[in-house]
Amino acid sequence: MARHNVTFQPHGAVIAVEDGEILIRAAMEAGVHINASCGGEGVCGKCRVLLEEGEIDGGITEKLDAPDVTKGFRLACQSRIRSDVTVRIPVESAIDTSALKVRSGPRRTARILQVDFDALKEQGLFLPPVEKRYLELPEPNAQDRLPDVTRLVSFLKVHHNEHRLVVQLPVMRKLPDILRISGFKVTATLARPVQPGRKSHIINIESGDSTDRNFAVAMDIGTTTVYGQLINLNTGDIMAEHAEFNGQISYGEDVISRIVFAEKPDGLERLQDVVIGTVNKIIRRIVRKSGVDTDEVSSITLAGNTTMTQLMLKINPRYIRRSPYVPAATLFSPIPAVSLGIDLADHAPALVYPAVSSYVGGDIVAGIMGAGIYRTDKITLYMDIGTNAEVVIGNRDWLACAACSAGPAFEGGGVKFGMRAAKGAIEDFSLDPVTYEPMNLTIGNVRPRGICGSGLITMVATMFESGLLDSQGKFRQNKTKDRLRETDGVTEYVLAWAADTQIDRDITLSEIDIDNLIRAKGAIYSGCQTLLEEVGLGFDDVDQLILAGGFGSYVDLENAMTIGLLPEMDPDRITYIGNGSLMGARMSSLTNRIRRDVVDVTKKMTNFELSETPSYMDHYVAALFLPHTDIDKFPRLKARLTDRK
Amino acid sequence: MARHNVTFQPHGAVIAVEDGEILIRAAMEAGVHINASCGGEGVCGKCRVLLEEGEIDGGITEKLDAPDVTKGFRLACQSRIRSDVTVRIPVESAIDTSALKVRSGPRRTARILQVDFDALKEQGLFLPPVEKRYLELPEPNAQDRLPDVTRLVSFLKVHHNEHRLVVQLPVMRKLPDILRISGFKVTATLARPVQPGRKSHIINIESGDSTDRNFAVAMDIGTTTVYGQLINLNTGDIMAEHAEFNGQISYGEDVISRIVFAEKPDGLERLQDVVIGTVNKIIRRIVRKSGVDTDEVSSITLAGNTTMTQLMLKINPRYIRRSPYVPAATLFSPIPAVSLGIDLADHAPALVYPAVSSYVGGDIVAGIMGAGIYRTDKITLYMDIGTNAEVVIGNRDWLACAACSAGPAFEGGGVKFGMRAAKGAIEDFSLDPVTYEPMNLTIGNVRPRGICGSGLITMVATMFESGLLDSQGKFRQNKTKDRLRETDGVTEYVLAWAADTQIDRDITLSEIDIDNLIRAKGAIYSGCQTLLEEVGLGFDDVDQLILAGGFGSYVDLENAMTIGLLPEMDPDRITYIGNGSLMGARMSSLTNRIRRDVVDVTKKMTNFELSETPSYMDHYVAALFLPHTDIDKFPRLKARLTDRK
Repeated sequence: MARHNVTFQPHGAVIAVEDGEILIRAAMEAGVHINASCGGEGVCGKCRVLLEEGEIDGGITEKLDAPDVTKGFRLACQSRIRSDVTVRIPVESAIDTSALKVRSGPRRTARILQVDFDALKEQGLFLPPVEKRYLELPEPNAQDRLPDVTRLVSFLKVHHNEHRLVVQLPVMRKLPDILRISGFKVTATLARPVQPGRKSHIINIESGDSTDRNFAVAMDIGTTTVYGQLINLNTGDIMAEHAEFNGQISYGEDVISRIVFAEKPDGLERLQDVVIGTVNKIIRRIVRKSGVDTDEVSSITLAGNTTMTQLMLKINPRYIRRSPYVPAATLFSPIPAVSLGIDLADHAPALVYPAVSSYVGGDIVAGIMGAGIYRTDKITLYMDIGTNAEVVIGNRDWLACAACSAGPAFEGGGVKFGMRAAKGAIEDFSLDPVTYEPMNLTIGNVRPRGICGSGLITMVATMFESGLLDSQGKFRQNKTKDRLRETDGVTEYVLAWAADTQIDRDITLSEIDIDNLIRAKGAIYSGCQTLLEEVGLGFDDVDQLILAGGFGSYVDLENAMTIGLLPEMDPDRITYIGNGSLMGARMSSLTNRIRRDVVDVTKKMTNFELSETPSYMDHYVAALFLPHTDIDKFPRLKARLTDRK
Repeated sequence: MARHNVTFQPHGAVIAVEDGEILIRAAMEAGVHINASCGGEGVCGKCRVLLEEGEIDGGITEKLDAPDVTKGFRLACQSRIRSDVTVRIPVESAIDTSALKVRSGPRRTARILQVDFDALKEQGLFLPPVEKRYLELPEPNAQDRLPDVTRLVSFLKVHHNEHRLVVQLPVMRKLPDILRISGFKVTATLARPVQPGRKSHIINIESGDSTDRNFAVAMDIGTTTVYGQLINLNTGDIMAEHAEFNGQISYGEDVISRIVFAEKPDGLERLQDVVIGTVNKIIRRIVRKSGVDTDEVSSITLAGNTTMTQLMLKINPRYIRRSPYVPAATLFSPIPAVSLGIDLADHAPALVYPAVSSYVGGDIVAGIMGAGIYRTDKITLYMDIGTNAEVVIGNRDWLACAACSAGPAFEGGGVKFGMRAAKGAIEDFSLDPVTYEPMNLTIGNVRPRGICGSGLITMVATMFESGLLDSQGKFRQNKTKDRLRETDGVTEYVLAWAADTQIDRDITLSEIDIDNLIRAKGAIYSGCQTLLEEVGLGFDDVDQLILAGGFGSYVDLENAMTIGLLPEMDPDRITYIGNGSLMGARMSSLTNRIRRDVVDVTKKMTNFELSETPSYMDHYVAALFLPHTDIDKFPRLKARLTDRK
């Protein structure tokens, strides 16, 4: 696709964008502030810019009068770039111009780590848990009276080098008729042992050759959302994916309230039923989307946190929330999916990811496996930031983990106008360095409804770095009166006036919101710090950082470092894997090698209970600042702040 | 108990009997004929004897007039022996007396082989498939946060040397509460692997110490009758046993008619349901009899012929009766008993005996295992005679087997007045050598209702040896007219006149009945002969003969040889194991060693299809005589017959 250069004046900033990009997004990307309250919907009319050269589509609305249009004014949020262009941002005074420092660098999100199926195959790691084999068996006669099952097993032994096979009753029941209907030409489905040398189970038998129809489902059972993928076991492709809110949400938002509900009479049965309902809904969607029959799905792999896993398996999680916080089990044998109520064929096994402890569950273990941390030499810090945050440090030789009581601030919890990353969420933000007027960009370029995690991080980082917020997260009242106000004794910044929102209320960010964010990021940062110290390391020893979780792909890394959520490090050493739990579930669907290794990984993983690690509280308290009590831990930020003064 | 000598005159035969024995049974035992039609109920009044010395109870009825009683006459069937006695059998003439040859020897049934539990233990063979372990686990605390399952498994590892354990979901579900209710003092039930070195499964967990309550059920699923035993796994004792007709009988008497029914819509489901109904009925009876709770039953072992096994497992047996007669499967993995509909606890595995072929099933394999044939050096001929007959020859090194199409003559089939061994069945028989008057003894000493298998064998043997029957099984009409008659062109012998029976009809034995018996015994004898020839042996090479089946314990061995059912051999080398299938099931319940070895045994066993073995038909035709075309195969009988002439 064609790319165009956009030059912003009077800054002189230049950025290359794709044809059709919206001008205000190009400005944000280039670090150029343009006032904008309404998220990009064209309602507030503040983002007027002067087109000096080049061609744009749109940008002319009733918010601009005819003379302005004639002069070349356009609304940046309504303008699509069609050639190299030069635009000028109107500024009030020369002082303003001098203050128009372009942000330190363009937005920099983490590189996304993808699974390379061909590489897996090349490395000999493609050992799917369920394989199909097409067989043309000899027919029995008076000289060859082998029982049907023995015939099948012997043929696999002689012609496919399969020496350790078990046949279960349902296959015995189907086999005689299918052999004779198909003229002894059948496809056998083999469930592979996790440990090499163990027996494979013949779990299904089909008439004719159906080897090209072999699929698996991978699922992440999140407390809030359940994600599912349909995977082609022959190609490794994701055929379809779908997410649904976990049906258990009606019984409590978080893990603890679910556990409480599970203790009520029939509560456990209800929660199990409901989450399986969600699983089945997703399966129906992804098989329909892909034109696959549920009978062609040979396995399902499920990963979730410890409570979700126990609820899904109908194991009461009551002791997870009672000291000393002991889970019932952390390793699970494969079981028939139907035995959990999952709508798949009788023969499909459900493979459940093992956990480490009550608060470091199968979702984290799946992430570790999916991201390949257990196979690398590099010392890797893995952070999964979702409703809560879990951190893992280690490499192929050792692993340590901890759960941080971060709370859901990054998913919008504890923040008055916090929301999930959905349409209308402010996802990016800039501040006029002189007037402290906001530039809000929303998901979908519509009027704002709230603030999502990545928006919140950028907002607080920008306010702090511009001096509007001090290191304790308090607003400097003297900076501006236009947008700062006190409501019920709490100082808040008005991001968007009611008229410019979808919710007909002013959208604000208060010191309470910021305090909650600081507590959340402080818990995560100090959690990592404590964990590293417990294994005798510091942040400097970390070779790579892997981020997982719903919000991670949109987070500007520099801003995350500015608020002290992430340690300051080279962004090239940071990768993002998205939903690590889902990725790990998918990887396990594709290769048994991971299912074999995961047992060792969970045994190898040392779990630290932060609340009982003496140094943790000190680290936590020290982290309750922007970015931290010890600014020397953030030298790049320190340099920028010094420079700015 | 006191024993008394009974002297019979004019024969001079003496026999020692227990106090209270009935006089007519003592006579039969001693080989002394006393006319008796009514089976011992005292109705016919024919068994008059003269008490010359000693003391008896009873024997005086309205059938005797006062003068006779005064003289010392008594009815032998109503007299109980209370001291040493001498009695005189009235005979018509001196000729009679000279003909009163005492039978060659007393009744000689086979020695019964018993399982010696202590010997099993001493040989290190006591490896029950399911064991219990009482455990006092350490309670978790802040320094010891092992998950509940890991805690259990680790404790077993450290303190019980159990290094390979699997925990299934139902145990995970129960474990957390049971641990805390019991103060971490629990009993774990371990299902042992058949192959050493494999994993044990923890299948149940109970509060406190319940190691003394560990039971198993063993069952023989016969086509006609299902037999069950409750076994104490700590002592090896049989706590209770019970038998019921197989509920499938309403859907067909024999295997073939069951297969035909199973092919009807829902026929298979119906037959499975019905046989499991019978299994459950027996379980209810034996647990109630023993004061055991079904939850305390840790396993069930089931043995049956191939068709019964497939029906029980809901595997359609249709191809068993279609050329080339292939069963669906012969080896079965353990499955949860509840999955078959068996009313036991969720955790109890059902262990199903493997088969060899369509017509040599798990019942025969169980007999081989129970009788220990696979462990002996001795060349052993094993004959299981029931609704059909199966024969096995071999020892620890090799085994060969065949099914004989004998039909159910020995269970009363194909014989007009044939019946099972139940009250009123003529079970023993003697013939007056001069008058050819019968001496019928029935089970329960009541008027006869029919003839059971052992009675039939003795009857035909006696009639043949006395000369009433020729070697083709035809009556010699010239011997007597009193009891021989022709009905519908068939010659028959009247065993009991209607008045002396329970059924108000004459009970007879016809040449057609005898012909059927000869075909049955001919099929078995020639089957054994063919099987032996196929492995290069003859009857002389057989070191021991083991009989199994319902009728075997009562069969007089000499009579069975006389009719040519058994080869002539030293009775000391013949043992009887009763229901071999049930015995094998019980042995497997007690020791995994057998479950391990049985797989090798079924693989080692060569199956011969007699109908396709060319020599079989010749052998069969030659065996359709009493005892055989070649009398030289029965030298002892030949000598007796020569002697008699």
